[in-house]
Amino acid sequence: VRISELADVTGVSIPTLKYYLREGLLHPGRARGATRADYDDTHVERVRLVRTLIDVGRLSIDRVREVVTALDRPPESRHLLLGTAHDVLRQAGGSPPSETMTARLAALGLPDCVDSPASTQLAQALSAAEEAGWHLTDATLTSWFAAMKRVADADVVPELAAMPPGDALRHAIVGNVLTDPVVIALRRVAQEALSAERFSPASEHQASR
Amino acid sequence: VRISELADVTGVSIPTLKYYLREGLLHPGRARGATRADYDDTHVERVRLVRTLIDVGRLSIDRVREVVTALDRPPESRHLLLGTAHDVLRQAGGSPPSETMTARLAALGLPDCVDSPASTQLAQALSAAEEAGWHLTDATLTSWFAAMKRVADADVVPELAAMPPGDALRHAIVGNVLTDPVVIALRRVAQEALSAERFSPASEHQASR
Repeated sequence: VRISELADVTGVSIPTLKYYLREGLLHPGRARGATRADYDDTHVERVRLVRTLIDVGRLSIDRVREVVTALDRPPESRHLLLGTAHDVLRQAGGSPPSETMTARLAALGLPDCVDSPASTQLAQALSAAEEAGWHLTDATLTSWFAAMKRVADADVVPELAAMPPGDALRHAIVGNVLTDPVVIALRRVAQEALSAERFSPASEHQASR
Repeated sequence: VRISELADVTGVSIPTLKYYLREGLLHPGRARGATRADYDDTHVERVRLVRTLIDVGRLSIDRVREVVTALDRPPESRHLLLGTAHDVLRQAGGSPPSETMTARLAALGLPDCVDSPASTQLAQALSAAEEAGWHLTDATLTSWFAAMKRVADADVVPELAAMPPGDALRHAIVGNVLTDPVVIALRRVAQEALSAERFSPASEHQASR
């Protein structure tokens, strides 16, 4: 189909589609003469992915380009897939984790920081919290890790083993982008539920007597 | 102290401090003549809060202004504190949750969407995921909610009841801003741990035989 139809199907304007083409977020269509090109289902799917990453994931254009580049050349090993997914999703930059932090996480039984983007991300998030004066106890971290294993149990599904690498990588990236906000919202709902239990007007009344 | 010393103590440049003053993120200093003003510990603390919200929370200037406005006039009731915290933290806008979604969450035993910013945030995050083609089963949501209750158990601490309302509100806001990235990073680490268990080279080898 022509670019105007790609715009109709995806709901993304022609200028924006041309921008995605220039920025390398969308692969070129098949040339049909000097001024037109044909687009197919792979373009529709890619445009939807780019919108999801930008609108829901709030990824920058550069990060989206990293994602699509990774999708076009996924690692062969299942084991490396998640590392690649986590690498493109995490905030770029930041200083490498300190030895103290690495040792602390290892002592808690968390995987070490050398090869894993997730462990690096964790060490950086913890360091940022501590620098801002927010200390998390080992007991809290251990309990939270157990909780997040329960969450991850629904993420790392056996079906991943049967998918082609590119599909498995897209599944991991899109799954995290779309459901991180769900997990965070559930945390807020859980906080409100516990707050209602612990600080409801009735218990406040009792406390003030 | 003068603004130059406030800059030294906080590591934030004078032009940036003046920007915060103009934008209402920082309360004015006490006037000392026509061209200088004195700043105190409340300013140091406020500048650090603003940096945390911007650097770690990635909040926009408008959202930071909402946070500091809320902090200056916190709700009296403990019960409403978290609602206020969640309201300033969640993404503004978005359509109100559909009746179908509200009913679905209620059927799962999750609090309803009428008054709670967190429930609205959850319904919106779920709707966004579903619109992008990512369906979460009721079993997954129930399991994730149980996991996030475990996380929230460390958030809703009894000490909150003894704090002045403004301090409790700051605690709730800063705690979420600083530790959401930790929770998400722990999810990634848990995914990698489970992936290693389920898709390690050894089990891949077995699967390919």
